[in-house]
Amino acid sequence: MKAIEFNKTVIFRDNYPVPEPQSGEALIKIDLAGICNTDLEIIKGYMNFSGILGHEFVGRVVKINGDRQELVGKRVTGEINCPCKECEYCQKGLYTHCSNRSVLGIYNRNGCFADYITLPVDNLHIIPDSVTDEEAVFTEPLAAAYEILEQVNIKPDDKVLILGDGKLGLLVSLVLNQTAADVLLAGKHEEKLGKVEDQGVKTILPENLEISKQYDIVVEATGSAGGFEFALSLLKPRGILVLKSTVAANKEINLAPVVVDEITVIGSRCGPFKPAINALEKKLFNVKPLISGIYKISKAKEALKLSKTKGCLKVIIDFND
Amino acid sequence: MKAIEFNKTVIFRDNYPVPEPQSGEALIKIDLAGICNTDLEIIKGYMNFSGILGHEFVGRVVKINGDRQELVGKRVTGEINCPCKECEYCQKGLYTHCSNRSVLGIYNRNGCFADYITLPVDNLHIIPDSVTDEEAVFTEPLAAAYEILEQVNIKPDDKVLILGDGKLGLLVSLVLNQTAADVLLAGKHEEKLGKVEDQGVKTILPENLEISKQYDIVVEATGSAGGFEFALSLLKPRGILVLKSTVAANKEINLAPVVVDEITVIGSRCGPFKPAINALEKKLFNVKPLISGIYKISKAKEALKLSKTKGCLKVIIDFND
Repeated sequence: MKAIEFNKTVIFRDNYPVPEPQSGEALIKIDLAGICNTDLEIIKGYMNFSGILGHEFVGRVVKINGDRQELVGKRVTGEINCPCKECEYCQKGLYTHCSNRSVLGIYNRNGCFADYITLPVDNLHIIPDSVTDEEAVFTEPLAAAYEILEQVNIKPDDKVLILGDGKLGLLVSLVLNQTAADVLLAGKHEEKLGKVEDQGVKTILPENLEISKQYDIVVEATGSAGGFEFALSLLKPRGILVLKSTVAANKEINLAPVVVDEITVIGSRCGPFKPAINALEKKLFNVKPLISGIYKISKAKEALKLSKTKGCLKVIIDFND
Repeated sequence: MKAIEFNKTVIFRDNYPVPEPQSGEALIKIDLAGICNTDLEIIKGYMNFSGILGHEFVGRVVKINGDRQELVGKRVTGEINCPCKECEYCQKGLYTHCSNRSVLGIYNRNGCFADYITLPVDNLHIIPDSVTDEEAVFTEPLAAAYEILEQVNIKPDDKVLILGDGKLGLLVSLVLNQTAADVLLAGKHEEKLGKVEDQGVKTILPENLEISKQYDIVVEATGSAGGFEFALSLLKPRGILVLKSTVAANKEINLAPVVVDEITVIGSRCGPFKPAINALEKKLFNVKPLISGIYKISKAKEALKLSKTKGCLKVIIDFND
């Protein structure tokens, strides 16, 4: 099968063996896969991963090894953390924090930039008919945006600022703007901001932000190591800083303001798929303007190249002939 | 009056004018004052403060300008944040975060390393007769330890680690060990650890700590910029890191583990005085072993010198002749 492998460098393979589902796993034919900033960080060395890249997908179940044969033929996406179901965290239902987990295309498990993947059947979510493939491929990053609402009670009277107009920042703005809170997205790219402005999100260029401690909640989604201290400068005392960026780089930081202003910093990673799929089904917002390009797998090199360019949003790889 | 002033350098004054209480303020004759690490950080440049140092004290009210004359003659200590009672934070009762606050010996207000201070009457707390002066002078740092219990629900089944056997770390260990949780204090100095071991606190040398993600809560009270990342390496996913150290120095940090493990970092500063005084009155633990020395004000230079030495705990200045 065709596959995009990373092993110190990116390798475009035509003859990768089709995987065999283990007991409790499904074999899935990939239709579309999305390129995420995490993939680009992995290519820079993050997580020391080697294997097939990719963790955002929509596809069809072609085979199941074990129960739930009724899923064969269904259009699905899948949670990326594959848990052991036995450790302390799994016992508590915290599968995304399983001590022994593998993670699709990120840690110890081949990813979805390939014609076929295997995933545990329990990880799969059926995509409703009214949700297109192009929308469904956003489920995983959209779930990461919904994770914020799992972790933080955003009160109607809160002033919320999102820093960063990358893919994740834009999705976070669409999700949080569903609340009654006063939500503002700050980003450097007017064109990107325009994608959500059309949908009612208030936006601002960073240079127009008044630097004062005025926000109850700041979501740091810049993907840059400098975002943390900028966020601190904008938070009210006792405010909440939601950290979304996983940046491989170190940065010199002074943590004294966290103590003096008694800030709560909350790390936020993978989120629940069901609310993300519900939101797509309910058409709460439109994710399709965030697509910068859809490339056939034969043009995957161009897709990766585009995804690294400034101003680019979601690049999708199409595995259908 | 005698006073220890900081103005780029430490100045021991004999002829500082006695302050006059403004409306709503008390004039207090200082009996004992404690030296805090924050004082030593200020001497290094933290907060850009100039004025009389010191914020831990016990004294007697000698004069009141306004209501509550019944306080005259009472033995008191006092909250160090002097709020405006008008701003957004004061309206919510968050006086320690008042936008316009002055802070005793730290920001815009002369401190208690002096024969006399003024403080708002509302800041004062009467010391019960059964609490000695030597104990009462611990109220402010003990309140900072109790702030953790105001912010974090420590569950009976939690594994809690405190990093740092300085004054604050020891007080935090005494306070948190009152819970049923499994509490461990890690510090480098066997002699300091001994002060709380005698009172039932489990202790360990850092080199004997197993470096694995095993604690639900880690309190960082090392006073060193490196404590943050060490704490992260010991926290379970979804764990809580309570930051107590205000360190003037920057440090190169990688925040990715906060995101990946969805850690909550909580900055923790000044706390409630009433529970601290209650704890001293109930004799829940003994703070007196933490005293390294009591020096007359005429020997203040030696007191400051001792407070900067390794292995030293609380140094107290006695303003009585």
